[in-house]
Amino acid sequence: MADKIRGVFAPVPTPFNDDGSIDEGGWRKNLRLWRASPLDGIVIAGSNGELPFLSLEERVRLTKIAGEEAAGSLYIMSGAHFPVTDDAARAAEALSAAGADGVLLLPPHYYKGKEEMLLRYFQDVADASPAPVFLYNMPANTGVDIGIDVIREAAKHPNIRGIKDTSGDMTKLGYTVLCTPESFSTFGGTGNWFLAALSMGACGGTMAISILFPRSCKMLYEAFLAGRMEEAAALQKRLLPVSDAITRRFGVPGLKHALEAYGMAGGRCRKPLLPLPKKDAETLMSVIKASGLDEYETWRKA
Amino acid sequence: MADKIRGVFAPVPTPFNDDGSIDEGGWRKNLRLWRASPLDGIVIAGSNGELPFLSLEERVRLTKIAGEEAAGSLYIMSGAHFPVTDDAARAAEALSAAGADGVLLLPPHYYKGKEEMLLRYFQDVADASPAPVFLYNMPANTGVDIGIDVIREAAKHPNIRGIKDTSGDMTKLGYTVLCTPESFSTFGGTGNWFLAALSMGACGGTMAISILFPRSCKMLYEAFLAGRMEEAAALQKRLLPVSDAITRRFGVPGLKHALEAYGMAGGRCRKPLLPLPKKDAETLMSVIKASGLDEYETWRKA
Amino acid sequence: MADKIRGVFAPVPTPFNDDGSIDEGGWRKNLRLWRASPLDGIVIAGSNGELPFLSLEERVRLTKIAGEEAAGSLYIMSGAHFPVTDDAARAAEALSAAGADGVLLLPPHYYKGKEEMLLRYFQDVADASPAPVFLYNMPANTGVDIGIDVIREAAKHPNIRGIKDTSGDMTKLGYTVLCTPESFSTFGGTGNWFLAALSMGACGGTMAISILFPRSCKMLYEAFLAGRMEEAAALQKRLLPVSDAITRRFGVPGLKHALEAYGMAGGRCRKPLLPLPKKDAETLMSVIKASGLDEYETWRKA
Amino acid sequence: MADKIRGVFAPVPTPFNDDGSIDEGGWRKNLRLWRASPLDGIVIAGSNGELPFLSLEERVRLTKIAGEEAAGSLYIMSGAHFPVTDDAARAAEALSAAGADGVLLLPPHYYKGKEEMLLRYFQDVADASPAPVFLYNMPANTGVDIGIDVIREAAKHPNIRGIKDTSGDMTKLGYTVLCTPESFSTFGGTGNWFLAALSMGACGGTMAISILFPRSCKMLYEAFLAGRMEEAAALQKRLLPVSDAITRRFGVPGLKHALEAYGMAGGRCRKPLLPLPKKDAETLMSVIKASGLDEYETWRKA
Repeated sequence: MADKIRGVFAPVPTPFNDDGSIDEGGWRKNLRLWRASPLDGIVIAGSNGELPFLSLEERVRLTKIAGEEAAGSLYIMSGAHFPVTDDAARAAEALSAAGADGVLLLPPHYYKGKEEMLLRYFQDVADASPAPVFLYNMPANTGVDIGIDVIREAAKHPNIRGIKDTSGDMTKLGYTVLCTPESFSTFGGTGNWFLAALSMGACGGTMAISILFPRSCKMLYEAFLAGRMEEAAALQKRLLPVSDAITRRFGVPGLKHALEAYGMAGGRCRKPLLPLPKKDAETLMSVIKASGLDEYETWRKA
Repeated sequence: MADKIRGVFAPVPTPFNDDGSIDEGGWRKNLRLWRASPLDGIVIAGSNGELPFLSLEERVRLTKIAGEEAAGSLYIMSGAHFPVTDDAARAAEALSAAGADGVLLLPPHYYKGKEEMLLRYFQDVADASPAPVFLYNMPANTGVDIGIDVIREAAKHPNIRGIKDTSGDMTKLGYTVLCTPESFSTFGGTGNWFLAALSMGACGGTMAISILFPRSCKMLYEAFLAGRMEEAAALQKRLLPVSDAITRRFGVPGLKHALEAYGMAGGRCRKPLLPLPKKDAETLMSVIKASGLDEYETWRKA
Repeated sequence: MADKIRGVFAPVPTPFNDDGSIDEGGWRKNLRLWRASPLDGIVIAGSNGELPFLSLEERVRLTKIAGEEAAGSLYIMSGAHFPVTDDAARAAEALSAAGADGVLLLPPHYYKGKEEMLLRYFQDVADASPAPVFLYNMPANTGVDIGIDVIREAAKHPNIRGIKDTSGDMTKLGYTVLCTPESFSTFGGTGNWFLAALSMGACGGTMAISILFPRSCKMLYEAFLAGRMEEAAALQKRLLPVSDAITRRFGVPGLKHALEAYGMAGGRCRKPLLPLPKKDAETLMSVIKASGLDEYETWRKA
Repeated sequence: MADKIRGVFAPVPTPFNDDGSIDEGGWRKNLRLWRASPLDGIVIAGSNGELPFLSLEERVRLTKIAGEEAAGSLYIMSGAHFPVTDDAARAAEALSAAGADGVLLLPPHYYKGKEEMLLRYFQDVADASPAPVFLYNMPANTGVDIGIDVIREAAKHPNIRGIKDTSGDMTKLGYTVLCTPESFSTFGGTGNWFLAALSMGACGGTMAISILFPRSCKMLYEAFLAGRMEEAAALQKRLLPVSDAITRRFGVPGLKHALEAYGMAGGRCRKPLLPLPKKDAETLMSVIKASGLDEYETWRKA
C-alpha cells in the first residue's frame, strides 16, 4: 500500500480569462510558483476551484497541465464529483489518466438521502477510480454533513484513502482519526483552525490560506510535529484572520483578488459569483497586511 | 401581457430505461394520460424530474416530446437551472425553442451568497429567456431559501412571472402575494398543504400528488374557488398522507414506484438515488389505498 | 366530556408598572376591554405574557383577577410551564384553583431530550392538573419542536385536550388534526397564517393580533366557517403584516407599544427585554395604520 | 487586577436524594474527593448541575458548603443565570456573599433577541456582581450562540473576566483569544476537544470529564504547556469517547450513573430528566473501561 498522504495542500482557484475561458498561461504561472513553495500538494476543482462550474474536459485539462508543470513535486488531487454516480466514476477514470495522484469526492447532496446513498456513491466511484479517493466534507456548501458511520464504513474500502473535512466539528474529526486505518489521511479543511485539527490527530490540512502563504502553513505544521507549541500557536493566531477573510468572509472572489494582488493569476469568477466590492477588497488587503505573514514567505523572492 | 398562469401543475418524473437512458415511449404514454386528466400543466426537469441528473440535451428532448403530445392542452414548464449563469441562460433559450411555455429556475446554491447574487442570476436568465421565468424555491434540496426581498425585486422584471415555493413558510407565501404584481403567479409547492397555500393567496399548486391524483387536486382547487370549504378541507385531509409519502417520506424512488403501480412509466432513478426498499413500498401503497383518492380519478378509465 | 374548545384566543401580555411589579389596575382595564370584544378566550402567561419572567404567585394572581373580571365570558387559559416537572404540576393545581379553565404547557427544553422525556412531562402534569392541559409548541423560543409522535401519544391522555402550535409547519398541523381525537383542539399559533391553519383543520387560533384586533380575527373565523372565502382571504391579507409586526419583527416590546397606543395597559417589559427603539415604533404604527383593520373594531367605541 | 484564571475546571453535578432534595452529605463527600484531585476549580450550577432546576437558595447552599470544604484549594464558580436580569444580578450578589470566587452567566435565551439584549444583560449583572463574571456559551441547550461582537464588547467590562465556550466553533474561539484582553480567560467547554481549544489559545477547560478523570485532563494540560505534543495528543484520543459519552450521548443521567459507579454521589436527576436506560448504562461503562483512563487517576487511592 502506498505511503500515507500528509502535509499542506492548497485547494487552488481556477484562473479564468475575461471571456470565461480558462487562463492556461496563468495556470502554468501559478503552478510554477506553488512548485517553488513548500507545498506538499494541490487540490484542483475543489470549492475554490469553482468545481460546480467546471466541465469534465476542463478538469482534465487543468490536471494535465498540472502534471506537466509539477508532477513529482506536488501531489495532484482533482475533484471528481458529479451529481450522477456514473459521471463521477468516469471523471475519476479520466482524471487519473490525466495525471491525478488522487481524486476528491463530494457526497451527493441535492437529494438529502440516507447514509446508505452516500456510502454507495463513494464505494461505486472508488471501485472505478484508478487513483485513490479522498472524501470531501463541505457542509457549508452542500448542506450535507458526512456522518462518522459513513466515514468509518467508507474507510474500509481499499481505494478510499482519506478525507478533507471542513465542518469544523472537532468531535467528529477526533472520531475520524480513531475509527479509520492508520493509513487513512484526515485533513483539516481550513487554515482557521489548522493547529486544532493537527492536535486532534489530523495528518495535514488542505486550506485556502496555503495558496498564498504556504510557508507560514508549513512552518506551523513542522513546529507542531517538533513540539514547538508556542511557535505553532503564534502562527495559528496570525493565520486565522487571513484564512477567515479569504474563505468565509469574502469567498472565492476574495481569494482571487488577493491572488492578483500578489502577482498570481486569478481573474474573475464565473457568474453567478460576483466580483469583490471595492470596500471588501480594501478590508481584505488590510487584514492580510496586518497579519505580518509576508515575512515568512521567502520562497516568493526566488 | 399574457394571462396569469393558474391551476394545478404536475412536477413530473423522468422515466428511465434500465440502461439509464430516457424511456421516450414511457414518456409519451405518461403525457397522453396527463393530457386526458384535469391537469393545467406539467413541470419538466424539476426535482421529481431529477433535474441535477439531466443534461440540457435531455431536457430539450423531453420538452419537444411534451410539445408533440400535449401542446395546447398542458402548459409546459421546463427546468432551466444550471450552476453557471450563462449555461442557465442558454438553457432557457433552448427550452423555449423546444416548446416550453415557461421555464423554472432554482437559485444558485453551492456558494451561499448574498441576495444580490440570487437576484442577478434570476434577472440575467430572465433577460435571455424568450419564455417567462418562474422562480423555484426548494430549500430542502438547495439549502437556500429565497428571501422576500429577492422575490419582490425579481418580480419587477417583466419576464419573471411567478414562483413555485415549497418552503412551507406561510408568512413568506402571504408576503409574496402581497408584494408582487397581480399578474405574478404564486404556486404552493406541495400537496401537503395545497389548501393552506390557496387560502394565503396562491393561485395554484405544482405538486407531486397531482401526477397521480390530478382530479382530486383539481376538485380541491375548484371547491376552494367556489367557497365549498368543507369539501375542500375534506379533500386536503385525504391528500396530505399520500402527498407526504411520495415526497418527503419516500422521495422520487417512492413516487416512481407508485407510478409503476398505476401502469405509468417510472423506471429506476439514476444513481446515486437508490430503489425504494420493499418494506417502504408496502407502506407507501397502503397509505395510498387508505386515502380513498382513487374514487375521484375517473379520467383513468377513459 | 366537556365541549371542544374553539375560536379566537388572545395570548395577552402582562402589564408592568415602572418598578417592575404587575400593574393590576391596567390588567383589570384590559380584561374589561377584551370581555367586551368578540374574543372567545385569553391565554395568560404565554410568550407574550413573559412567562419565563413570572413567578407562580404572579401567574396565580393574574388568573384570579381574570376570573373576577371575565369568568364565564372568556375561557381563561394559564401558562403552567416550569422547568421541573413537579413545579409544573403544582402550578397546574394552583392555577386551576385560581380559576383557570385550562392550562398551557411548554415542553421541557433546556436539555434537548428524547421524545420520551417530553411525553412523560406532559403526562405527569396532566395527571396532576384539575384543568385540562393544552400543549404549547413554540420552537422559535424553545428550540424544541414537539413531534407528531409525541402529540399523537399525548392526545390519548384524557386530560390533554389540545395544542397551540406556532411552528408554522402545515404538514404537522394537518397530521395533528388527523391523528388526534375529534375533541382535541388544534389552534394555530399566529395571525400570520390563521386562515391557512383553519384550512388544514385547526379549530381556532391563539394569536397576538387578536389582542388588538379581535373582531377582525373573529370575522375571518366566521367567514371561513360560512364558506365566504373571498372575505376570509381578504381579511388574512390585512392581518398578515400587522400580526408579523407585533410578533416576529418587533416582539413583545412592539406588542406592548401598540397596546399603549390604543389606550390599553402595556408598560415596559421586564429586563433583559429592551424597549422598542423609536424608529421601530414608527414603522410598527404605520404598518397598523396601513392595514385598515381599525374599521372593523367597532366594539372599542362601546 | 487579579491573576488570570486558568487550568482544569469541573462543571459538577448536583447530587439529589430520592425525595428530590439536595444530598448535602454526598455533596461534601464529592467536594473532598475533588479537593484531593489535581482540579483547579469547580463550576456549581452549570448545565451538569441542572441549573434550570435549582433555586437561588439551593445554589447559595451548594456554594457555601463548597467554600467550607474546598475554599482556597479549588476556585469556586457558581451559576448565576436567571431569566430576569434583576434576578441574575441578585443571584450574583448572593453567590459572591456565599463564597463564590466567580459567577457563570448564560445569555438570555427564551426571547431570541438582538445582540444588544445579550450585551446589556451581561453588563448589568457584571455591574452588580462582587465576584468576576464568566460568560457561558452553551448553544446546544440555549439555542443562542453568543457572537464574537458581543464577546468583544463584554470583555471590555472590568468585571467580565472570561468565557466558557462549548460551541466547538474553533474560528470563534480563536477570535475570542485575539480580541479580548490578555487577562480574559477563554475556557474550552468540553473534553471532546480540550487539546484543540488549547491549541487555539484557550487557557484551560471546564469539562465534564474532569469530574471523573481530573488527573488525565491535567496531564494533557501540562503536556501541552510543556510542548510534549505526542503525549497530549495520545491523552486527547483517550478522553474523546469518554467525554462524549458523559455529555452529548448520555447527558447528565449518564454522568451521574458513572459518578455512582466510582463511589461518588450522583443520585437521580430531577424530572423531567429520566434515568439512564440499562442498555445505555452498559455502553457507557464499557466506553469508560476501554479508555484506560483509570490508570492515571492515582489520586483516588489517596
